Amino acid sequence: MVDVSPKDATARQATAAGTIRISHEAMELVRKGRIAKGNVVETARLAGIMAAKKTADLVPLCHSLLLDHVDVEINDVETGFEIRSRVHSTGKTGVEMEALTAVSVAALTLYDMIKAVDRSMVVGDIRLLEKSGGKSGTYIRNEK
Amino acid sequence: MVDVSPKDATARQATAAGTIRISHEAMELVRKGRIAKGNVVETARLAGIMAAKKTADLVPLCHSLLLDHVDVEINDVETGFEIRSRVHSTGKTGVEMEALTAVSVAALTLYDMIKAVDRSMVVGDIRLLEKSGGKSGTYIRNEK
Amino acid sequence: MVDVSPKDATARQATAAGTIRISHEAMELVRKGRIAKGNVVETARLAGIMAAKKTADLVPLCHSLLLDHVDVEINDVETGFEIRSRVHSTGKTGVEMEALTAVSVAALTLYDMIKAVDRSMVVGDIRLLEKSGGKSGTYIRNEK
Amino acid sequence: MVDVSPKDATARQATAAGTIRISHEAMELVRKGRIAKGNVVETARLAGIMAAKKTADLVPLCHSLLLDHVDVEINDVETGFEIRSRVHSTGKTGVEMEALTAVSVAALTLYDMIKAVDRSMVVGDIRLLEKSGGKSGTYIRNEK
Amino acid sequence: MVDVSPKDATARQATAAGTIRISHEAMELVRKGRIAKGNVVETARLAGIMAAKKTADLVPLCHSLLLDHVDVEINDVETGFEIRSRVHSTGKTGVEMEALTAVSVAALTLYDMIKAVDRSMVVGDIRLLEKSGGKSGTYIRNEK
Amino acid sequence: MVDVSPKDATARQATAAGTIRISHEAMELVRKGRIAKGNVVETARLAGIMAAKKTADLVPLCHSLLLDHVDVEINDVETGFEIRSRVHSTGKTGVEMEALTAVSVAALTLYDMIKAVDRSMVVGDIRLLEKSGGKSGTYIRNEK
Repeated sequence: MVDVSPKDATARQATAAGTIRISHEAMELVRKGRIAKGNVVETARLAGIMAAKKTADLVPLCHSLLLDHVDVEINDVETGFEIRSRVHSTGKTGVEMEALTAVSVAALTLYDMIKAVDRSMVVGDIRLLEKSGGKSGTYIRNEK
Repeated sequence: MVDVSPKDATARQATAAGTIRISHEAMELVRKGRIAKGNVVETARLAGIMAAKKTADLVPLCHSLLLDHVDVEINDVETGFEIRSRVHSTGKTGVEMEALTAVSVAALTLYDMIKAVDRSMVVGDIRLLEKSGGKSGTYIRNEK
Repeated sequence: MVDVSPKDATARQATAAGTIRISHEAMELVRKGRIAKGNVVETARLAGIMAAKKTADLVPLCHSLLLDHVDVEINDVETGFEIRSRVHSTGKTGVEMEALTAVSVAALTLYDMIKAVDRSMVVGDIRLLEKSGGKSGTYIRNEK
Repeated sequence: MVDVSPKDATARQATAAGTIRISHEAMELVRKGRIAKGNVVETARLAGIMAAKKTADLVPLCHSLLLDHVDVEINDVETGFEIRSRVHSTGKTGVEMEALTAVSVAALTLYDMIKAVDRSMVVGDIRLLEKSGGKSGTYIRNEK
Repeated sequence: MVDVSPKDATARQATAAGTIRISHEAMELVRKGRIAKGNVVETARLAGIMAAKKTADLVPLCHSLLLDHVDVEINDVETGFEIRSRVHSTGKTGVEMEALTAVSVAALTLYDMIKAVDRSMVVGDIRLLEKSGGKSGTYIRNEK
Repeated sequence: MVDVSPKDATARQATAAGTIRISHEAMELVRKGRIAKGNVVETARLAGIMAAKKTADLVPLCHSLLLDHVDVEINDVETGFEIRSRVHSTGKTGVEMEALTAVSVAALTLYDMIKAVDRSMVVGDIRLLEKSGGKSGTYIRNEK
């Protein structure tokens, strides 16, 4: 793992987002609560939060961090779901990977819950929206 | 977890794919081996394989399975990397989630290794290419 | 771990139950959805299911098993919640520990979600209701 | 996970307790060291300590914490065992969940070690005895 | 992971061994039970058993397996401890790695328990004594 | 776990080393890249780094720590490989166990990658070379 100077423990935060594209037929079943596996959105939200805590176990050179806050928001849109995650920490390294991991695993969980009715779903646009804190400073994505 | 009939333990396989879009400047550094964290592609490949084994720990309603084979292939393309994973098992449930998880975590690892030189990377097109075996039969994605 | 004869892989199932006693004031807040942390019952249900899959990682001499089915049911009762879990497997060892672990972790999660409004909650009556399959045969608890 | 103000990292501690009710016949076998699986109490004690370190992996919205100290004490009483756990940390969130998890998993492990001779055991009275430190201050259970 | 033919699920077993060399002074303290951390040998024995179950999580290309039996034996010898582990499975791949992992982690745990009184300990001679079952047949180490 | 005074969070580091003895024939195949499982040294290096992050999950009484830096270096020597790991942290307890765990798991991974061509390999000489920081001060091994 890349070295971390012992002095830079400061507040850091990151926001990431992504989408899952789902067929109209499958989205109708989800919206009507007809998915056998249970509460699709709530399960994916929790899976994303739990995954953020496991980031360093998944990404080999990622540092372990204590997270102060993780949230995952999943919005029903015309073409499927939009997922957004915000992570805060006061650790020594940034939390981009934690936010991106939360979005990715929330998307995988949506896929798992809905796959019995649609196997053609596509997970995409997983990206960092912004980050702040730490040596590398603030990044805000140019989203236009 | 959804019930699984005790009789259907048969050979199953799944192939999933995805991409990570990376700036030309960052790809040049990766190609020249100038990334400080080490061997980018090999690390991502291993992270994907290891993640496949953890799928049931990440996706709440996914069954635990013993995998017979996992491979992850990462190809350097004009716009970044293409990732492909194939998983085989003789368990009672399909291995789509394992293949999709391998691709997703390999992509996250590529992001982590390269993020010091490009924070605008986008992970996308994570999708199932084909699956076979099990009650739900064979699925082959219409990719054109 | 105690030895397991290689021949006895048969269908096994177990049902366990438990309770969490919660103050009337706190239960009112839960019932009205006033708990800041989110959907209390759904989170506990998922935590129980996920924990069943980790039983062998928690209980030192417990064998790893592939589970065919886990469910966790949480019912609102006068004095708090009643939790019940059923687990099925065709592995070589019984699934009592998986059912008891699911109940215990669902109860811990209810405690965590509600503790900001009641720290006097008591988790109890965690017990095996019935099991069947395997060398030790069927057990049905005498509940009167 | 609920937000944590970055300033409140102070010494925190929590004590939790619980019991497992075991038949006289089974307790006699445990006391005489006749349990095939090995040292019952020492195994449960270690399982409890190790589980405390995994609390955030089990309880979905629980923050990860670094623990300074965990102990688990298991006392042989007339009707089975009494389990008590104390946890200390200087993290930003309380350690009640860690103490309760240690007690719960120690109890599950006692159940696993003894179940070949008694399946009617009941785990109960899992409760917080006291906690101190943090924004929510000190709690001492009224145990009379 | 290397491919595994779906037909060869047969009984497999492996035995591995290793040593930890400890100073006479430290061994005297261990033998007299003067080690502050508790029961040294029993803790290491359990750590070895639990680690065998995590082998596929530690060794990247190792297949997940269900183990039928793991034991770890730790003998007090003149110069420290000798550790031996036997593992049985009916899975599709051998269990050498599980036996070697059990020995390695038992040795690391002995080191951890005793390090306050001796930091010069050396873990060594970790080797496979024998294995049987599977395509590659039987191996018996020539130990003279 | 042994108690840790809340004041001593200071920079700590540890270096550990070990060897794996491999037959000349097997080393020739490794050097020529003829090992079917892939890049032997890089896989072992990553496995060691990832294992350092899991030390507290493997060694029962070891405290969880956040590591600032882990590296693992694997050198091809006449008789096999020499492995060396350095770990830095600013936590409250030493990082000897993390360095020793990284070396041990890197060695196990080398064994796993090469075992198809040599089952007689021996892992040995796993030892602490030096540590500094913390109450117990600096230790430098006398290696002559």
